[in-house]
Amino acid sequence: MTRTFDIAVIGATGSVGETLVQLLEERDFPVANLHLLASGESAGRSLSFKGKNLRVRTLESFDFSSVGLVFFAASEAITRSYASRAHAAGCTLIDLTAALPTEQAPRVVPEVNPEVLKTLAAPYQLTSPSPAAIAVALVLAALRERVDVQRVAVTACLAVSSRGRQGVSELARQTAELLNGRSFEPQLFDRQVAFNLLAQVEMPDSAGHGVLEKRLANELKELLARPQLKVSATCIQAPVFFGDSFSVSLQADAAVDLPAICAALQVCTALEYIESGDYPTAVGDAVGQDVVYVGRVRGGQDDPAELNLWIASDNVRKGAALNAVQLAELLIKDYL
Amino acid sequence: MTRTFDIAVIGATGSVGETLVQLLEERDFPVANLHLLASGESAGRSLSFKGKNLRVRTLESFDFSSVGLVFFAASEAITRSYASRAHAAGCTLIDLTAALPTEQAPRVVPEVNPEVLKTLAAPYQLTSPSPAAIAVALVLAALRERVDVQRVAVTACLAVSSRGRQGVSELARQTAELLNGRSFEPQLFDRQVAFNLLAQVEMPDSAGHGVLEKRLANELKELLARPQLKVSATCIQAPVFFGDSFSVSLQADAAVDLPAICAALQVCTALEYIESGDYPTAVGDAVGQDVVYVGRVRGGQDDPAELNLWIASDNVRKGAALNAVQLAELLIKDYL
Repeated sequence: MTRTFDIAVIGATGSVGETLVQLLEERDFPVANLHLLASGESAGRSLSFKGKNLRVRTLESFDFSSVGLVFFAASEAITRSYASRAHAAGCTLIDLTAALPTEQAPRVVPEVNPEVLKTLAAPYQLTSPSPAAIAVALVLAALRERVDVQRVAVTACLAVSSRGRQGVSELARQTAELLNGRSFEPQLFDRQVAFNLLAQVEMPDSAGHGVLEKRLANELKELLARPQLKVSATCIQAPVFFGDSFSVSLQADAAVDLPAICAALQVCTALEYIESGDYPTAVGDAVGQDVVYVGRVRGGQDDPAELNLWIASDNVRKGAALNAVQLAELLIKDYL
Repeated sequence: MTRTFDIAVIGATGSVGETLVQLLEERDFPVANLHLLASGESAGRSLSFKGKNLRVRTLESFDFSSVGLVFFAASEAITRSYASRAHAAGCTLIDLTAALPTEQAPRVVPEVNPEVLKTLAAPYQLTSPSPAAIAVALVLAALRERVDVQRVAVTACLAVSSRGRQGVSELARQTAELLNGRSFEPQLFDRQVAFNLLAQVEMPDSAGHGVLEKRLANELKELLARPQLKVSATCIQAPVFFGDSFSVSLQADAAVDLPAICAALQVCTALEYIESGDYPTAVGDAVGQDVVYVGRVRGGQDDPAELNLWIASDNVRKGAALNAVQLAELLIKDYL
């Protein structure tokens, strides 16, 4: 008989949490009891799981000793408030909110750095990295036998769903108002995002870098175990509902072997490689998929050691919920 | 008494041509007679110029000996067909379609490389570069005393108006259909551009580079007289009506002096520098303006010789029509 696990999903009513619950069902994760938790106002709603309606309960009164595995998919603040309580109760903890330091809960992508788990002891604490880091790291990991990358410049064009359901409804609202010739006061975003590109997604630090830009650089280095990698990261807000896109320019230590690189991308099961001429997009290809799309793979115009490419990924699914579920699958297979 | 000039605008009914005619009026260019020309189907329409309605006439029967200065703002094919006739008639020629080789009609941006004109002889032939090259070159030129740039990586997010009026109406049509829950067949663009980002704007060559990407790299080197500059260029199609945006990562030969760089950008009259914390956007700032906006100026996270910035520019105005009119102003001031 298969072992089953008692699981809690915190932030179950958010778009990542809801996708996570769907994936536990779709992938037939061995769930004994599933506890859906949310903070005050979302509690009371129901979500469907394996044909049953599960009531979302308030997090405040939850007894963590009743579960073995907890996904934190609400806010950073909620993870900070409840992680130590879950840990003390002996729960394995997978955080999607980047609230915990990497020394406590290392960033792991199963296809990139699964060996990190061997260095940990129960109860396990892992962080599912940012959607941008997951997408770019998957591509760089597929290439690491073929090219010694020294420097990565990424322009990450983020979907409004990276701001949750509110981001989605705000882009729809702004777009409808503009098409009807009406003016509006921006909400959530600091200005018009419809038919526009916003050059930053949060207030930068004193050096000009945003939190997500720093996360992308740090997480790439951690996931690839390449602390010396030089990363230039620009995160922008695109008027796209779902799916992140990444324009990536790499510099290697020597001339790149394009056919070998394309072949390596093609055989990687976590990726869908699109040949030159065609190209992937977030909306047309990546959204709803378990793989990350990569295309427009080309050398440099002026430098044989340069490699350029384009990545499209479902930020909610592969960029968050799916990676977290895959981490849980890895844990129950070899560690729990 | 001021000298005046007989001028022809070819492609007067396109968005660039129409803006060019507006700018000749706004900037009080010394026009004697203005001839508006277009190919067959657009001829017969009228445009307003200095309070008069001017009829757009067919290009086919035009007598180039009746004018001294010709703007080519229609298609590449039309420039190829008529440029030699205009040149043989003694006209000064300003091409906005990149149809002529640079040896014949060098790329010039008045604030960047006006000295090129000294090397030419009448009748003058000049090319107004691509909107992307104009915007990025203006910023790099403002910095050239302060930083020795070795490498430039640009992700150019192009507005649909770079495809003319048809691009604008296609984005509006796709957006309206989607908001109304209706399906549509894409036109002009090869797939859905509304709420999406397209990773290429034209069929790439066998090495994977698009024409605009090659133009951007070549024009930057020519404008800055830096044949050894290494350029990585990615041109993507954004769901933005007007205004191009550029994510730019530069590598210098030594640690960059950020305060000196910001000061140089701030004093450049062709630029509007936006301080860290705030940032410019295409729609909110650049569109309709004669200056190019630059912001998010910051160093590298991992490399003191790195410089990152964001540029927003009106692709139709500063990126095309205005640069062409400024070239004409430069010519009549010192050369005609």
